[in-house]
Amino acid sequence: MMVRELGVSRRTVVGFGDDISAVKISPGRVAVLKTDMLVGSTDLPPGMTMRQAARKAVVASVSDLAAKGVRPFAGLVALGLPRKLTKADVRQIARGLSGAAKAYGFPIIGGDTNESSDLTISIMLFAVADEKDLVLRIGAKDGDVVAVTGDFGSASAALRAVVDYGEQPGRLHRDLYKALYSPRAQLELGLRLASSGALSSSIDSSDGLAWSLHQLSESSGLGILLDNVPVSRAACDFASRRRLSAVDLALYGGEEYELVVTVPSRMFLKALRAAKGSLKRIGHVTGRFDGVRIVRGLREMRVRKAGWEHFTR
Amino acid sequence: MMVRELGVSRRTVVGFGDDISAVKISPGRVAVLKTDMLVGSTDLPPGMTMRQAARKAVVASVSDLAAKGVRPFAGLVALGLPRKLTKADVRQIARGLSGAAKAYGFPIIGGDTNESSDLTISIMLFAVADEKDLVLRIGAKDGDVVAVTGDFGSASAALRAVVDYGEQPGRLHRDLYKALYSPRAQLELGLRLASSGALSSSIDSSDGLAWSLHQLSESSGLGILLDNVPVSRAACDFASRRRLSAVDLALYGGEEYELVVTVPSRMFLKALRAAKGSLKRIGHVTGRFDGVRIVRGLREMRVRKAGWEHFTR
Repeated sequence: MMVRELGVSRRTVVGFGDDISAVKISPGRVAVLKTDMLVGSTDLPPGMTMRQAARKAVVASVSDLAAKGVRPFAGLVALGLPRKLTKADVRQIARGLSGAAKAYGFPIIGGDTNESSDLTISIMLFAVADEKDLVLRIGAKDGDVVAVTGDFGSASAALRAVVDYGEQPGRLHRDLYKALYSPRAQLELGLRLASSGALSSSIDSSDGLAWSLHQLSESSGLGILLDNVPVSRAACDFASRRRLSAVDLALYGGEEYELVVTVPSRMFLKALRAAKGSLKRIGHVTGRFDGVRIVRGLREMRVRKAGWEHFTR
Repeated sequence: MMVRELGVSRRTVVGFGDDISAVKISPGRVAVLKTDMLVGSTDLPPGMTMRQAARKAVVASVSDLAAKGVRPFAGLVALGLPRKLTKADVRQIARGLSGAAKAYGFPIIGGDTNESSDLTISIMLFAVADEKDLVLRIGAKDGDVVAVTGDFGSASAALRAVVDYGEQPGRLHRDLYKALYSPRAQLELGLRLASSGALSSSIDSSDGLAWSLHQLSESSGLGILLDNVPVSRAACDFASRRRLSAVDLALYGGEEYELVVTVPSRMFLKALRAAKGSLKRIGHVTGRFDGVRIVRGLREMRVRKAGWEHFTR
């Protein structure tokens, strides 16, 4: 509904329906714009510090640019700050923002600060790119390899651990803690993969691997068949300790900032080299538009279009 | 503190400390970026509809670009929506956003929607401009004329009426109602004034006339002496009815989206013509940095650096 109401414009190159938006600013050149809002009451896991929250807000936005192969050029931040925050809290937010911006190589050049009853960190990123270099959600072809830049499940395992099982964040396995509280965006990997020219489509996995795969499938009107879901070691351990399905943790998690890409099979080696090995084949694109499926044992099963659910406490 | 933490960068042309931010994207050309957040619990006067709130969020951002002489090229919207909002509310927000964007001639090309306990409408605007054409807060010279694009006091009179005196919004004088609930940004006027080349500095009046004058004064390190504060007819009537100072309403109000500019006196006629008459001289710039002062009767009085206070209910 929102999209229909807001309409489209001829200057829009990429609008709603992809990870970023882009408008043409000169022949062949586009401005890439991205906004992402982090909300205290729904987006913060128990025990997350203000600095981590601010950092994660930046990471989430950078990850979307990374998936398109675009380096952020400048950022803005709009803050809604509850009155109860201390000056030290606000300083931590500023440090989280500036540390993350520095890590990904762009300046934060402006913003707006407000009082709000719910903590809100709204990030806007700006970049300039060649239109032809953008890697979009649409573009996968029948037979393309589906690949990812890392293992999955750690963030959702960590979230389950602290929310469902009441484990102390500080006592989580280090990899689980880092995945949920100090995630990183795959910016350099995204830039290298995009500039290799080997990708046919790309998305980040922030809404969950299953959700991202469904987006790629729907954007191109093709199916995806998975034969391998890389689950992190720490998520496997957590799953077996809690008698959960490790593959489900990996598929239906979220807040993991890996890249999910498709690559024509003849280009896979090129992509693998560009990624310096950090690319894992997980399945392939199929000609029939029948959603996302997975081979488990001798059976093919449907992968639900489900992902990250905001948690309310 | 925030500014120091976030640092600066060589690519930043205009950073914190002006109405907009700008980064150089090619020789002489800059990307202009602006973010502005509207928060339900602190920014909405009683009785404001969702559509009006969304429209006002856009107007507030456009007004800042108008003051710099920049036409918005594209916008993004990040929304934090309380669970209690109905689908009709959300549709009204979308209509308010799209109506305002259309009125000021730019498309909304992307966004992010979240659940939040406090209504949040975060607008981001993007534009491209020639660096030399930007009219900044800094630039006023001793002897320049200080001028505004309209009358003041209506929005603060309206707010006082509904908040302090419990008047029904629907029964306000039409001009008061419009000023507070359906304000407009002076985009065309700002563009014409800027392209006339007659302005030495400029700001919008959204934080109040007094506040804006202090910003211009501080940015240039000079004083401002007022001899005339144009108060709207409706604000005068309200002030006399409630035994308030009309000039104080006009000076210390806010949420009025006029432009406050300085013009070298030899250029004033040129600026007046560019504005088709919609420009009123209110004072002049003085060589001594002694803040903002006003001539009242036979005395010079200090104009406080005070402005819009968010109201909490």
